Amino acid sequence: MNYCSECGEAVELKIPEGDNRQRHVCRHCHTIHYQNPKIVAGCLPVWEDKVLLCKRAIEPRHGYWTLPAGFMENDETLEQAATRESVEEANANLEITQLYTVISLPNIDQIYMLYLARLVDLNFSAGTESLDVRLFSEEQIPWDNLAFRTIDFTLKRYFEDRQKDHFPVHTSFLAKHNRYQEES
Amino acid sequence: MNYCSECGEAVELKIPEGDNRQRHVCRHCHTIHYQNPKIVAGCLPVWEDKVLLCKRAIEPRHGYWTLPAGFMENDETLEQAATRESVEEANANLEITQLYTVISLPNIDQIYMLYLARLVDLNFSAGTESLDVRLFSEEQIPWDNLAFRTIDFTLKRYFEDRQKDHFPVHTSFLAKHNRYQEES
Repeated sequence: MNYCSECGEAVELKIPEGDNRQRHVCRHCHTIHYQNPKIVAGCLPVWEDKVLLCKRAIEPRHGYWTLPAGFMENDETLEQAATRESVEEANANLEITQLYTVISLPNIDQIYMLYLARLVDLNFSAGTESLDVRLFSEEQIPWDNLAFRTIDFTLKRYFEDRQKDHFPVHTSFLAKHNRYQEES
Repeated sequence: MNYCSECGEAVELKIPEGDNRQRHVCRHCHTIHYQNPKIVAGCLPVWEDKVLLCKRAIEPRHGYWTLPAGFMENDETLEQAATRESVEEANANLEITQLYTVISLPNIDQIYMLYLARLVDLNFSAGTESLDVRLFSEEQIPWDNLAFRTIDFTLKRYFEDRQKDHFPVHTSFLAKHNRYQEES
């Protein structure tokens, strides 16, 4: 950030009065520009004993497999964001069952919030950000070709929990910077 | 947003190619400036049969009671944010027990994420954003003087769940714009 989005003058990095963190502050109109983490919302869509994965058509991690997920937008709820991303990336018709994993990624200022969802039918197909969309049984999961560690974490919890038929909300964080986490 | 934070030139509102939403886009360097919801992280601190509330020393809702909570910062996890806010607003020494309520506020582009926490001792006191900090039993909760509907929602769930000694994660949303929700 170099310029003030309000008045167009230069900003400087400084700790505002009463604050304890450096912020971008406008030298002219004194607006303080806060920066905050972004939410990545998505789904783990389930059909019988299989789960739906998308093969990424975009960077980062082009060609790797992921769950449908993306940046939450303004003017929507978490559930709407997770559903919208599943439609955009997989044209998936689904119903959200519950919140499932909540994962902080402090190194890249993202919070993953992934929901369990029930596929309503098999009329899914690749959206513009996907090369392919497929159902995988546990044995078929391409563990070495998953796009992000958040996806690996979520799928591992799911197959463990399924054995117990008990799906608690899992909260976690991934601390170490790693290209796999870059973006959804 | 009027000016590009990268180059200082004027931005315009338009739908970028391949997108379906209006964004602020720089006329000069073509940077797309996305805007996303913010997370408000906080705690419901518990001591025996009582919960800790803070009386707000700042607007909005000056003088009303709330749980310690505030905007999540970059470079921290959700749990760190919830703990930090509890220290800043109540000098509370606590241990987080679990994620408890997740509430989307699409009208003001905020997501509340409140954690159950155990107060470790009674050495709490008002931080600079609080006029007072006190413990309340269920009968003492100032229901008519709570700062935000998210706080009312969370406290109601807590006292209901406590009767069953079962504390599931509650996900919800508050759709209607209401001054009570403005900010944490």
